[in-house]
Amino acid sequence: MTNVISIFDTTLRDGTQGEGISLSAEDKLKIALKLDALGVHYIEGGNPGSNGKDIEFFQRAKSIGLNAKLTAFGSTRRKNSIAEHDSSLVRIVESGVPAATLVGKSWDFHVHTALQTTLEENIAMIYDSIAFLKHNGIEAMFDAEHFFDGYKNNPEYALSVLKRAQEAGADWLVLCDTNGGTLPGEIHEIVSRIRSELSTPIGIHTHNDCELAVANALAAIQAGARQVQGTINGYGERCGNANLCSIIPNLQLKMGYSCVSTQQLQALTGTARYVSEIANVHMPVGQPYVGNAAFAHKGGIHVSAIMKDSKTYEHIVPELVGNKQRILVSELAGQSNIISKAQELGLDVNANTEKTKDIMNRIKDLEHQGYQFEGADASLELLLREAYGQTTELFKVESFKMLVDKSNGHMLSEAIVKLTVDDQTVYTAAEGNGPVNAMDNALRKALVQFYPEINNIHLSDYKVRVIDEKDATAAKVRVLIESSNFENTWSTVGVSSNVIEASWEALVDSIRYALLGMSKIESVGYESHERLGLVNH
Amino acid sequence: MTNVISIFDTTLRDGTQGEGISLSAEDKLKIALKLDALGVHYIEGGNPGSNGKDIEFFQRAKSIGLNAKLTAFGSTRRKNSIAEHDSSLVRIVESGVPAATLVGKSWDFHVHTALQTTLEENIAMIYDSIAFLKHNGIEAMFDAEHFFDGYKNNPEYALSVLKRAQEAGADWLVLCDTNGGTLPGEIHEIVSRIRSELSTPIGIHTHNDCELAVANALAAIQAGARQVQGTINGYGERCGNANLCSIIPNLQLKMGYSCVSTQQLQALTGTARYVSEIANVHMPVGQPYVGNAAFAHKGGIHVSAIMKDSKTYEHIVPELVGNKQRILVSELAGQSNIISKAQELGLDVNANTEKTKDIMNRIKDLEHQGYQFEGADASLELLLREAYGQTTELFKVESFKMLVDKSNGHMLSEAIVKLTVDDQTVYTAAEGNGPVNAMDNALRKALVQFYPEINNIHLSDYKVRVIDEKDATAAKVRVLIESSNFENTWSTVGVSSNVIEASWEALVDSIRYALLGMSKIESVGYESHERLGLVNH
Repeated sequence: MTNVISIFDTTLRDGTQGEGISLSAEDKLKIALKLDALGVHYIEGGNPGSNGKDIEFFQRAKSIGLNAKLTAFGSTRRKNSIAEHDSSLVRIVESGVPAATLVGKSWDFHVHTALQTTLEENIAMIYDSIAFLKHNGIEAMFDAEHFFDGYKNNPEYALSVLKRAQEAGADWLVLCDTNGGTLPGEIHEIVSRIRSELSTPIGIHTHNDCELAVANALAAIQAGARQVQGTINGYGERCGNANLCSIIPNLQLKMGYSCVSTQQLQALTGTARYVSEIANVHMPVGQPYVGNAAFAHKGGIHVSAIMKDSKTYEHIVPELVGNKQRILVSELAGQSNIISKAQELGLDVNANTEKTKDIMNRIKDLEHQGYQFEGADASLELLLREAYGQTTELFKVESFKMLVDKSNGHMLSEAIVKLTVDDQTVYTAAEGNGPVNAMDNALRKALVQFYPEINNIHLSDYKVRVIDEKDATAAKVRVLIESSNFENTWSTVGVSSNVIEASWEALVDSIRYALLGMSKIESVGYESHERLGLVNH
Repeated sequence: MTNVISIFDTTLRDGTQGEGISLSAEDKLKIALKLDALGVHYIEGGNPGSNGKDIEFFQRAKSIGLNAKLTAFGSTRRKNSIAEHDSSLVRIVESGVPAATLVGKSWDFHVHTALQTTLEENIAMIYDSIAFLKHNGIEAMFDAEHFFDGYKNNPEYALSVLKRAQEAGADWLVLCDTNGGTLPGEIHEIVSRIRSELSTPIGIHTHNDCELAVANALAAIQAGARQVQGTINGYGERCGNANLCSIIPNLQLKMGYSCVSTQQLQALTGTARYVSEIANVHMPVGQPYVGNAAFAHKGGIHVSAIMKDSKTYEHIVPELVGNKQRILVSELAGQSNIISKAQELGLDVNANTEKTKDIMNRIKDLEHQGYQFEGADASLELLLREAYGQTTELFKVESFKMLVDKSNGHMLSEAIVKLTVDDQTVYTAAEGNGPVNAMDNALRKALVQFYPEINNIHLSDYKVRVIDEKDATAAKVRVLIESSNFENTWSTVGVSSNVIEASWEALVDSIRYALLGMSKIESVGYESHERLGLVNH
């Protein structure tokens, strides 16, 4: 039996069932590119039969050149109808995907209670729908919803459902623990029995209601399943789906299975963090493998042992999954990344060891304050070039004021800025439809007479993230701004307990970066944007 | 063999090794009372030999009348010394606890690398230290650190360590997967072998580095362990310890073991949320069993099935663990979600079909504008109750102004609010460390004279999300605010292209919700506070 496990990602479909998760078609495209780089085999994008957003996603996803199989999701045909006339199934075919998942009932209780039809009609619905997909040349996965509950309640019926899906030509039979209530031992036993009865490859789809989704998926693989369905960071309805960010390294580093390449596995941490940024869901600091504290050491005894040998308190080498060790008492992390970034910019790191040490300390200090340069290359580049004397001061901010006034139902946002440019003082004001927009307008108004090229820059993305959520309204916020000059895209960061100040800082950096001509340098993010057709020429 | 499992809580000791977790002696006492009410058998409070805070805790904990055994933690004696002269061991005895845990090495690699002593001396350290505790009449748990790694590397040595601890009189031999790298199958096999070799009861202590801590603890119990060590919400170093909030219900509701009483189990959700409040760590919304979304339903098909029978998409009855079902309202769901939410609030939906249709349209319209109610239950409840005439106007906002000024490196945020309360005009101002904080301060300042209970409310989470990111700084933002009054938590939403206005809206809703008495003021927390003498009369 092969030791290759097929990774089926459903972040974009089942993941969006999670509370607070809502992704635009644009967000989904960005995430799909990241998943593809991670090397997953299937990317389930949504249900093209259900809403316009998903139709748009499938339309655009065709042209981004994915290696993974783009997969659509849908239900079996409606009861007492014909698959060929089922608009939802027809739209799956029309979407042009190479693969699709159809969910159907395998628990008799659900057939009676939720579907309100007969056991025979349910089986006919499954057979017809799978056969329809196969007839149209689409790889078909059958998601047997509530399979384990169904099997425990009525094994003959649950098995007959799978048999009929197999007869219809299903390429995979995916056993779902939809309610997340099954234990690993039961999963192992039931999957083993199914494997002995059927020849079609088995997939496993688990949920985390007992905090056992990962263990259940592994138990199924050990019993012979060869496809695992899950989501990045375990997003999903209720307590979430099985977390691929834990399953993939467990399978590959601990159990001898093969999922993605060694290099792709190193993209795991970056992928997890990127998806959490796009979904705007705070990542638990201690998330296994990919969390910021997954290899962080706090206890004094632990730290002293770690300094002798990392293996004393680390179960794997963090770099295997793209993560890194952190010592909480003395932040030593990240230096090598910064050095390699400086070298990449052509800065002479070795000839300036004092300077390098200083800027290192400054960056460490900023990170401690909540700055994050992973998503703000331009701010990092400004910092580094500044330290090595490669920037000039284009303008100096003397002061800024922001007034927001709501009375009689009327809302006013006004920004007043005072800058020095070439020994001239510029003092001006502008309105906006919100405070950040007003500041942006005022800043441009002040600078355009000196730097008319500012008209070529536009802000293409604005994100706000609360860093220490527990401090509520007194918490620090991090603002990320993405700008573009029709050729290139760059990102800057600002941090403050004051959202206005943080936005101002990121705005100023963004404009300085462009006016200093640094935006000519290509960033990795640009390529993705081009592939997505986001860059306006 | 008994089916009673001894629950050993180490939230106050190993839990505090988690990043960002720091508990005062006062905090620890509050949590100890909650743990006691939950019915855990051991409460490990800290290391009385290590710091003053823990000494204070043990001193005061003696007089709060715990049913659980208060347990101290420490290491085996230093190498080449005498247990009776080991100040850390002596302080454990002096602390007057009925039980103590001693950690010692069982992995030969650690003896050489971390401890830097001989294998024989390590065994002598363990024997002497356990014997010293037993001689002083203390129940002794031996925590065999890295036991599974040790056993895999050198089974004879790992076993000889346990045998010697047994000979010294240890009451429990606790096998620790300290690095969290072991898989459930290995745990089961190794625990089974140990059980066959030794007569002393076995405990299990797992970590979550592979997202398998819960599964590993359950595997050990199935192999014969009878004590499980873990923490509330899985707090702990790196990826955390085994989460008792998942282990207890899994053992008791799914596997036929007995841990706490049926009534105590109903305190589980309240305990988890209380500890997260005290520890000031935000609880993941989808945390199994006890999370706010653990029984929340979003998908339209799920919701319509749930309304027919909860069992269709719930693995247990939520009330068994003190949690409850929630219906989320979102774009993915049909109107059935809103209707069932209204019914849940006791609003007469059927008798007011016109009103129901109106409010439905209004909610749809708000969602179109960017509101999202799935994460803002309280705002939705306010809307629904308002539509059915169940609210009163507590105060009216006449105007508010927000000034942010940065000059000479100094940052000022000032809010000015004008309210009408009971026909009186209140006009006041306050500063803050950011605009939202300043508004919060000003609003509270204006209202406290009319509603002193406002002091019981605090904001526990603040989230900002840019809705149409491509509009950059002119984009709309959605602000979510979570507030809490100790055991209850509610969330409100505000939307605007102006982040200040959106925050203001969510703030005002949050306070209205509380002052209208919709968040039932909690009594258990009060009682605990009274027992601790914390209540200011």
